[in-house]
Amino acid sequence: MRILILGGDGYLGWPQALYFSNKGHEVFVIDSLMRRDFDFENKFDSLIPIESLETRTAAWKEKTGREIKFVIGDTRDYPLLAKVMQDFKPDAVIHFAEQRTAPYSMIDREHAVFTMDNNVIGTLNVLYAIKDFCPQCHLVKLGTMGEYGTPNIDIEEGFIDIEYKGRKDRLPYPKQPSSFYHLSKVHDSHNIMFACKIWNLRATDLNQGVVYGVETDETRMDPRLATRFDYDQIYGTVLNRFCAEAVIGYPLTIYGQGGQTRGYINIKDTVRCLEIAVMNPAAAGEYRVFNQFTETFSVNQLAEIAQKCGQELGIKVRIDHLDNPRVELEGHYYKAANTSLLKLGLQPHLLEDTVLVSIMKKALEFAGRVDKKLLDPSVNWRRTKNSLPENH
Amino acid sequence: MRILILGGDGYLGWPQALYFSNKGHEVFVIDSLMRRDFDFENKFDSLIPIESLETRTAAWKEKTGREIKFVIGDTRDYPLLAKVMQDFKPDAVIHFAEQRTAPYSMIDREHAVFTMDNNVIGTLNVLYAIKDFCPQCHLVKLGTMGEYGTPNIDIEEGFIDIEYKGRKDRLPYPKQPSSFYHLSKVHDSHNIMFACKIWNLRATDLNQGVVYGVETDETRMDPRLATRFDYDQIYGTVLNRFCAEAVIGYPLTIYGQGGQTRGYINIKDTVRCLEIAVMNPAAAGEYRVFNQFTETFSVNQLAEIAQKCGQELGIKVRIDHLDNPRVELEGHYYKAANTSLLKLGLQPHLLEDTVLVSIMKKALEFAGRVDKKLLDPSVNWRRTKNSLPENH
Repeated sequence: MRILILGGDGYLGWPQALYFSNKGHEVFVIDSLMRRDFDFENKFDSLIPIESLETRTAAWKEKTGREIKFVIGDTRDYPLLAKVMQDFKPDAVIHFAEQRTAPYSMIDREHAVFTMDNNVIGTLNVLYAIKDFCPQCHLVKLGTMGEYGTPNIDIEEGFIDIEYKGRKDRLPYPKQPSSFYHLSKVHDSHNIMFACKIWNLRATDLNQGVVYGVETDETRMDPRLATRFDYDQIYGTVLNRFCAEAVIGYPLTIYGQGGQTRGYINIKDTVRCLEIAVMNPAAAGEYRVFNQFTETFSVNQLAEIAQKCGQELGIKVRIDHLDNPRVELEGHYYKAANTSLLKLGLQPHLLEDTVLVSIMKKALEFAGRVDKKLLDPSVNWRRTKNSLPENH
Repeated sequence: MRILILGGDGYLGWPQALYFSNKGHEVFVIDSLMRRDFDFENKFDSLIPIESLETRTAAWKEKTGREIKFVIGDTRDYPLLAKVMQDFKPDAVIHFAEQRTAPYSMIDREHAVFTMDNNVIGTLNVLYAIKDFCPQCHLVKLGTMGEYGTPNIDIEEGFIDIEYKGRKDRLPYPKQPSSFYHLSKVHDSHNIMFACKIWNLRATDLNQGVVYGVETDETRMDPRLATRFDYDQIYGTVLNRFCAEAVIGYPLTIYGQGGQTRGYINIKDTVRCLEIAVMNPAAAGEYRVFNQFTETFSVNQLAEIAQKCGQELGIKVRIDHLDNPRVELEGHYYKAANTSLLKLGLQPHLLEDTVLVSIMKKALEFAGRVDKKLLDPSVNWRRTKNSLPENH
């Protein structure tokens, strides 16, 4: 198949490009490099060194003989998007090209506006480009489990059957996102559902849990194929951050009580889930939602697991409960459905101790590169920075 | 009170400014004039001639001695918004400053992007400006009943008590908006709810029905105080458009079967509802939703009423069912709650024959200004125009 990957240079986009290429698909990547730009501007860096997109793709060709073509560009640049759609004519568009973290979107007004603009307008452009130039192609969009928030009822996959005052309907699941980033994803979901309805497009919205792990079968083939290992307070997802903290003897930074429960998924399952979605496309006009996670944990449970795994490596792992910089419930009901991908053949790699130990070993290998200043949260939901100088 | 009206030069914003000013409030208007710009660029015009904002406000001062200050500007211009908030220090911000029609947002990609950008980013700026400079002030935001779509269960005011698999929660009402315009309003609703939660802001979201009528007690004081009478396919709401069609002997343009049922409200009740909201502000941290309509009608019912009223004026009114340019159900369940504003004292002006006859008389007065080319729908939901020329 011809697969266009938007955001194919990122933490997940890059391993996904390798995975599809390795299976013999023709892969084309568009990436704006915004993730790398942020690092450059803010002195952040991946714990594992990563190569440029040029070097990565050259190394991939050298190792496998397979070619991944790419162009540096932005989904907000409609003529560019349109040209790639016309020339490449993808069977599937995988859309990772979004500003992808809650803390980034909560830094200040400018970052909130950037998140809305990049994600919502970018996705709107993707929908138009598909309609205009490849109306049969299948959009596979990365959403997030965070779109649902933490309701006191079971979370379903995108839709819910409601019985109310003696009448029934199947309606979009009510969303309670908890950052401007999560909000932008909710907006995308509504926009995509509508586009499928009016233009007969086909789309799969993957509401993904928190991803952990930094290696796939393909990235392991050569150090130049490594993907990012983000451990910082902005981009580092909780389990990867805990591993970096553990190996340098820094206490695990738990926000508040630690009863926050979420869905989690191994990066190896992420790449497989995308393949399942692509190989089982939505029907014309269909907007479907899969919840893409394999297990749920509270933050405290993750910290305990990290402590145990640290012990195996001879590391004494401490835990620190910080004031929660976010506005969220720290103890709540959480039960979410995730059967769709399992029914289509996903065989989960669960969070066994060996998995976490291997991430920690990777972190140990690069422990000298951890910048402690990047671990503690500086972005506070309640005290978002003012946008203009005092003397404005 | 000090009341800032964003979009205070528009169809509803202007009568609202007059209404508050007449009650003795201090009124400040910001308007980008985007509505007037559209007319200028596309050769559209209000059926009733309207004066410039300069002339309008001067006439108001001449008639009443009251001053309405204004500045031409855009909610997307944050420094401007910030400066007004700092200098004027409003007690309430009334937010009408949005691209306000479904067909406009469905013209093509550029108009969809403009709608998202203007509405979503503009509102995000308003939220930040309130947080940064007037955190106690009350945001009163115009939403639309169209955010809900046409579910097969009762529509409540913003939230719904769901009992599901033996558990209960009160959740945001699931939305099914039916144009990029309606989607932008849903996005706003989610963003405002979140801002109230994290920053302790106070907001009232008024999900308004379709407004009809062109006169209030204040606009009637002087012809220079008139507000817009839009009768065209882009901006003309259905009942006003029917009146313009009727008086020139043009058949009423019903889209499809005409069973589409919606909530409606008289412009006189709109201005009063806003006053009710402002005088009964939301609590700090509260995001509340009022459904702002007084009656529901199907399009066919409105056409029948228009026929009857035409008869009283000696006009034979014909009806034409056009292919529906929109994607919507043409016959459906519709029952929506609207008790909040009634409980707070709204006394509705219902759609009696005399009301419609008076709008028709107004249309008759300016019948020579109707441009027939603007009556039939040219914007088609399924066949949104491509964004790039064929030879791109």
